[in-house]
Amino acid sequence: MNLPMMQVALDCNDTAQAINVLRQVEDQIDVVEAGTILIYRDGMSAVKNLRAMAPDKIVLADVKCADAGTKCGVSCREAGADWITCINAATVPTMSNAQKEIEVQVELYEGWDNKDRMQEWLDHGIHQVVYHQSRDAKFAGQKWSEQDVENVKNLIAMGFKVSVTGGVHPEILQLFKGVPVYTFIAGRAITGADDPHAVSKQFKDEIKRIWG
Amino acid sequence: MNLPMMQVALDCNDTAQAINVLRQVEDQIDVVEAGTILIYRDGMSAVKNLRAMAPDKIVLADVKCADAGTKCGVSCREAGADWITCINAATVPTMSNAQKEIEVQVELYEGWDNKDRMQEWLDHGIHQVVYHQSRDAKFAGQKWSEQDVENVKNLIAMGFKVSVTGGVHPEILQLFKGVPVYTFIAGRAITGADDPHAVSKQFKDEIKRIWG
Repeated sequence: MNLPMMQVALDCNDTAQAINVLRQVEDQIDVVEAGTILIYRDGMSAVKNLRAMAPDKIVLADVKCADAGTKCGVSCREAGADWITCINAATVPTMSNAQKEIEVQVELYEGWDNKDRMQEWLDHGIHQVVYHQSRDAKFAGQKWSEQDVENVKNLIAMGFKVSVTGGVHPEILQLFKGVPVYTFIAGRAITGADDPHAVSKQFKDEIKRIWG
Repeated sequence: MNLPMMQVALDCNDTAQAINVLRQVEDQIDVVEAGTILIYRDGMSAVKNLRAMAPDKIVLADVKCADAGTKCGVSCREAGADWITCINAATVPTMSNAQKEIEVQVELYEGWDNKDRMQEWLDHGIHQVVYHQSRDAKFAGQKWSEQDVENVKNLIAMGFKVSVTGGVHPEILQLFKGVPVYTFIAGRAITGADDPHAVSKQFKDEIKRIWG
């Protein structure tokens, strides 16, 4: 089994903060995410600067594209991103147009659990989904559960590469033991840590221990 | 019946283009939209600059917020926006957190037609929705229909203020005669016109003729 990749979600308030975190964790992570909030704040310059800092990593622009797939895909690709996110509420034409420009991950928020629609995504060449708990749902008290693990397994069985995010801490990784998760995405567990490098190494070591 | 308001969606590739259009149409429109693509490109500085140009208009930041409602709402409010969009796939806690910071419009994309969830939005103080055809669905050949008008009527009957967007041209306004639409939103019909002022005036005149 391939090792799951590790992604840092740089949901920072400005590009400088994101650069400061990335500098510390770069040797431990595989995917650099320019977070939605960061892109809202600083636009594509955030993506360009993170790409400049990490020329050999996968860079994800977490734009949660809902419409205008071509324009969105082109903008992010030209800024140096390898992947973008689309929201599950985007239409298939939007996702498909984006996928022609750049690799798309569909983020699974409310109303995602519709097998027919998901099969359409696969039929249109979209093979990545992001399974998660929203920040706000988590604040409202939700926890990772066996049901979440089952959902991830089912998505993998359908043929998706599945990334997992939302309150991801090193301790929750073992819940997914034996499940070929594509990428684990951690945000504030790393960006909010006193020692971001130590936490990112803890993630990477835990991945090696469980899947290695 | 109040006249529907007119909104220009400045889905431009950079802030300068948006400013150039807004300069020409400002006397005809009520709501200035910093488009999603524009915000992806230039971040909150786009919102700040449009606010500076139109101190007396309603400014909407079309961020299509899917998560992190508080952060998103605060960012947009601090940049000078009056309203933001949330995507229908956002969880209720996300929308509700955003609504505590700024007036929220929920954009109705795939999977929106769930009355229980919509009632939850109303119960959480969210009273605006945006009914539309996506750009990409439109490119794929969809047209405005009687069903769309019925859908808008039903949303108004539920208690929502409904904005209408997606391929909105002056000719389609009469389809909504007698329906108290809150705002009509036009993008490329105005931004792509040879004479944006003339088209925006055509919209405004048509609104007065039909609803006045």
